[in-house]
Amino acid sequence: MTKKSPHKKLRVHFEPDNVDIVVEKGENLRQAAIAAGVNIYASCGGAGTCGTCKVLIEQGEVESKRTVKVSDKEFKQGIRQACQSRVNTDLVVHILVESRLETAVLSRESKVMAEALATGWRFNPPLSKFFIELPPPTTGDNISDLSRLLRGLKQRYKLSNMTVDFDVVKKLPQILRDSDWKVTVTTLVTAIKPRAVDRRRPRVINVELGDTREKHYSLAFDIGTTGVRGQLLDLKRGKVLAQGVDYNGQVSYGADVITRIAYCQKKGGLKKLQQVVVATINGIIEELLAQAGVEVRHIGHMVVAGNTTMLQLFLGLDPKYIRLAPYTPAANFVPPLKASSLGIKVGEHVYLFTFPLVASYVGGDIISGIVGSGVYQRKRLTYYVDIGTNGEIVIGNSEWLVTAACSAGPAFEGGGIKHGMLATNGAIEEFDINPTNLEPVVGTIGREKPKGICGSGLINIVAGLLETGVIGQDGKFNTNLPTKRVRPGSDGYEYVLCWASETQIGKDIVITEVDIDNLMRAKAAMYAGCQTLAKSVGTTCSDFEQVIIAGAFGSSIDIEKSIAIGLFPDIPRDRFIFIGNGSLLGARLASFSTDMLDDARRVARMMTNFELSENADFMKNYIAALFLPHTNADEFPSMKEKLGRLQKSKLKQRMTV
Amino acid sequence: MTKKSPHKKLRVHFEPDNVDIVVEKGENLRQAAIAAGVNIYASCGGAGTCGTCKVLIEQGEVESKRTVKVSDKEFKQGIRQACQSRVNTDLVVHILVESRLETAVLSRESKVMAEALATGWRFNPPLSKFFIELPPPTTGDNISDLSRLLRGLKQRYKLSNMTVDFDVVKKLPQILRDSDWKVTVTTLVTAIKPRAVDRRRPRVINVELGDTREKHYSLAFDIGTTGVRGQLLDLKRGKVLAQGVDYNGQVSYGADVITRIAYCQKKGGLKKLQQVVVATINGIIEELLAQAGVEVRHIGHMVVAGNTTMLQLFLGLDPKYIRLAPYTPAANFVPPLKASSLGIKVGEHVYLFTFPLVASYVGGDIISGIVGSGVYQRKRLTYYVDIGTNGEIVIGNSEWLVTAACSAGPAFEGGGIKHGMLATNGAIEEFDINPTNLEPVVGTIGREKPKGICGSGLINIVAGLLETGVIGQDGKFNTNLPTKRVRPGSDGYEYVLCWASETQIGKDIVITEVDIDNLMRAKAAMYAGCQTLAKSVGTTCSDFEQVIIAGAFGSSIDIEKSIAIGLFPDIPRDRFIFIGNGSLLGARLASFSTDMLDDARRVARMMTNFELSENADFMKNYIAALFLPHTNADEFPSMKEKLGRLQKSKLKQRMTV
Repeated sequence: MTKKSPHKKLRVHFEPDNVDIVVEKGENLRQAAIAAGVNIYASCGGAGTCGTCKVLIEQGEVESKRTVKVSDKEFKQGIRQACQSRVNTDLVVHILVESRLETAVLSRESKVMAEALATGWRFNPPLSKFFIELPPPTTGDNISDLSRLLRGLKQRYKLSNMTVDFDVVKKLPQILRDSDWKVTVTTLVTAIKPRAVDRRRPRVINVELGDTREKHYSLAFDIGTTGVRGQLLDLKRGKVLAQGVDYNGQVSYGADVITRIAYCQKKGGLKKLQQVVVATINGIIEELLAQAGVEVRHIGHMVVAGNTTMLQLFLGLDPKYIRLAPYTPAANFVPPLKASSLGIKVGEHVYLFTFPLVASYVGGDIISGIVGSGVYQRKRLTYYVDIGTNGEIVIGNSEWLVTAACSAGPAFEGGGIKHGMLATNGAIEEFDINPTNLEPVVGTIGREKPKGICGSGLINIVAGLLETGVIGQDGKFNTNLPTKRVRPGSDGYEYVLCWASETQIGKDIVITEVDIDNLMRAKAAMYAGCQTLAKSVGTTCSDFEQVIIAGAFGSSIDIEKSIAIGLFPDIPRDRFIFIGNGSLLGARLASFSTDMLDDARRVARMMTNFELSENADFMKNYIAALFLPHTNADEFPSMKEKLGRLQKSKLKQRMTV
Repeated sequence: MTKKSPHKKLRVHFEPDNVDIVVEKGENLRQAAIAAGVNIYASCGGAGTCGTCKVLIEQGEVESKRTVKVSDKEFKQGIRQACQSRVNTDLVVHILVESRLETAVLSRESKVMAEALATGWRFNPPLSKFFIELPPPTTGDNISDLSRLLRGLKQRYKLSNMTVDFDVVKKLPQILRDSDWKVTVTTLVTAIKPRAVDRRRPRVINVELGDTREKHYSLAFDIGTTGVRGQLLDLKRGKVLAQGVDYNGQVSYGADVITRIAYCQKKGGLKKLQQVVVATINGIIEELLAQAGVEVRHIGHMVVAGNTTMLQLFLGLDPKYIRLAPYTPAANFVPPLKASSLGIKVGEHVYLFTFPLVASYVGGDIISGIVGSGVYQRKRLTYYVDIGTNGEIVIGNSEWLVTAACSAGPAFEGGGIKHGMLATNGAIEEFDINPTNLEPVVGTIGREKPKGICGSGLINIVAGLLETGVIGQDGKFNTNLPTKRVRPGSDGYEYVLCWASETQIGKDIVITEVDIDNLMRAKAAMYAGCQTLAKSVGTTCSDFEQVIIAGAFGSSIDIEKSIAIGLFPDIPRDRFIFIGNGSLLGARLASFSTDMLDDARRVARMMTNFELSENADFMKNYIAALFLPHTNADEFPSMKEKLGRLQKSKLKQRMTV
């Protein structure tokens, strides 16, 4: 085994996180930040084109490539793009507020927000808290307790036309007296505003002893076919307090939606699948509450996004007709309902919203992403793609939106991959390979010892193996190479990423030909979907003015490498933005803004769905895409050139030998 | 025992009921109709002043007193007031449609309705049914099942802006396919319309296979402290299909609201009382369904009225603060809720409305009555009185309404009376006494053998005993009379109404001095309340332009005799209208008309409550009213005269003896 030559160790200190990390000289500064657990925003995924990962170098020196994204003034101040900088000395680095991942997405004033994502939304959560002190009743003023409360809310906060949940009426008399007539009222806007003239009727959903306005939380969830992701949101301060992810408990009942729908047709099957996903969600909620030190009774509502099948299973709606032609979902819009009625372990007062959906395979997750990323607000032609087990794509702008689903399979979420795993700590995400000795350099999420490979890691690995000739364009291993890392295994040939001793799992972590084949089929489905949908509306991939990539990856996806394997069209890199989990983003924004909830319904109505499964073009495109990057080399000019060079160097090598 | 002299037997045949009854010559025709079980409307209670009991004499002759209520034309046609007619020969009598009890109250075009009761309401039940045939989905039209349904309702019935219950979403896919896309949708308007510009949002609460529009029912209930009364309503035809009554199961836990509130403070007490009244209601529902041959699944909603304590107990709201100064109820308005959540045995889709209330002792029952009788719509000054265990009174008109509660005790519902019973079959309601031999003539509801005495019977009996000198104005028996019927008993002196052999219960039915005392206290509370409330707003009883009497009596109350005992003020008889159970009437009208539901809330807001319990005047007036009819003889001039004559005749008798 060849060891890497030793490099000089340097210390990088990140502010305001107050975190240190030791790296080798020449390390990419953005990678160092990720490794240190400092969340840094980079919508282009590190290509240098978005300018969102700016940092201030307070002490020390970096070697930096300057792009147009850094102004003269900024450059003089010491501001650099982290992704374009390499560590030269010990450093003190300040992450600018607009570059911090969560802040950037969530801060109300965020410039990045205004530029890259949804615009024009106000911070006006559907859930509100009002503290009120009421005059105690007297003989001359002995109206009912509820009337007293509503009168007080009208006088103090100009709230009128409210409805009240029966549970509130039930506990009100005692709470008013126990609290000495000082209570906090929680209201929720549940109805969508149908016309400008119609007024919303806020619903009083809870009343608490004393002043609890500081404790004002909601939950945002994305239920993926493979993974479930949740966030605990602070509605008082507009920020994410904790996030968690876990495998969807339904994974044991089938990897994809079709097998799960089939399972539902067994006696008790639907109920079982509903229970297991609820158990997954309950587990994540427990973890989120523990992380943030929040009590469950202060959770006020919950927004859930997910694909059509996932939402129907979660709600206990039989998905039978989703898989039978002509593929009809039960409902495009499900009214808000009590979360506890589904078995979610939150207070009885908590309402749950689900995102509206478009069709059987175009669900609330993509509506959530389109709303969250503001595609429906801009004139420019956008290709929005949500990479996941049930891949969904949208093409359009503020005038029109078309959508389609392309069943990618679970490879992008680490499913069906020998050492695949969700994008959590210990997952290999970064990958580089020395073209000379074919030795790898891997980086994991959380900088832990490797446990497995996540979806974005898989893309990076396959791209790296392709670009160094370890695998061919057909995805098969070149078995004739001077390295022990390529070897026959139980699933055909494989490449060893980490030796057992280097891992947490105590065995070699490998990528196999079967894994590569799974990834190729997944990316082929997504690319063919894009081509087919674009053609259906008279455009081509090169017309896209913006590409927004969402997906259940970790903090980033490498655009260059994704193009290298043929997942995205080979168009200028500065058109790409990576927004992470778009579905969860939308769910979060809907918790922060009632406008967003309204927009979700508008967007769902705007979308036209195309069924690819019965489209002959799609099948043709799919077959053509089962190659790295594509059977038609002209579709990927930049790869054509790169692979051409590789070919030449191999030829030279062979001649030298 | 003196036997009545034998009279000629005559047969009266009633149409369209097709019922015969054999009566003695000279029998009052309205009494005969009641005895025959033919429900005949007579809002004045038989005084001849309302003109609502008109019948057509098709064959035979009656001896009739003609009043201004019968026009020349009608008189020529053979139309007579039943209450003013005596049977002279065998008869064939046709009850006019507007005189039929239920039809009169319910028929949309009823003249009686327009004249005597609430006006200006449209027949527009909050519950509606729509049958729809939908086009099955195709590949080109595969919108969700719910969207298909809503699109269909919009196209076919112009329904838009609907909300949908989650349970409907849940069962929709299967029902649509099982019914071959032909279903009936039930919608309900739950929200009160706050402004003219706001649109109501109908709520889809149920979807059924095929066309079920013919099966369209609701339930109206009045929960009284002593009795619970229910009606099954046909919303397709706007009529009452069945009615039932039973003792409120809570009676075993205390006769009045105060003892029940006290019981609630025991562990599990509230839950127990909630359960028993729900059990009572479930029993009545079962009976109503059986009577009418209706299936429970076709019940669509339920309207419940009752006094504040009864409603809070029914809803499981702790009534603790109702009896503690300053007497505050939990809520003036309780949002509609699922009936099944309270344990009512109806479908999961059934919503339950309760009437809004005014104060701790002025409940939804009186709001219901005021709305049902249209007091709030007219200029004329009205005294509205609801006779019951918790007597409630209202004075006002379309401009203002004041109200008060006067705890009468259960005597008017037969409670605390030795042989008291609810006004159901077998209850003695009619009573006459031969002034010479002091022998009684009794008539029972349903013309069954007597079982006991109902509230209206009690009034008639006490008035009769008073007017013949069997009891004095202090309610004590004259023990010096030539009849075996007055005798000492276990509760002091008593008068035997029926000998054991004449009854269903196999023992003598009597009225005791204790019974009379209970009635006197009850009527004193009502009359003192009326006087006190009138004075509070600067009027007197003689200013009343209309007196509307509601109460849980049978089909009528005798106004003359009620005045005789001092229950109502001694003003011209043609100002009196008896509407029966006003609370149930309001509940029924709210089932028939959404406007009425809105009005209920307006009326509740309009009312000003006076607390009599802390009013010194009330106590003074109450003491003064503990006499028959009153200690101040000038308050009851017509009785002063009548009792004066009696005094003279007694004097004469004594002199003769």
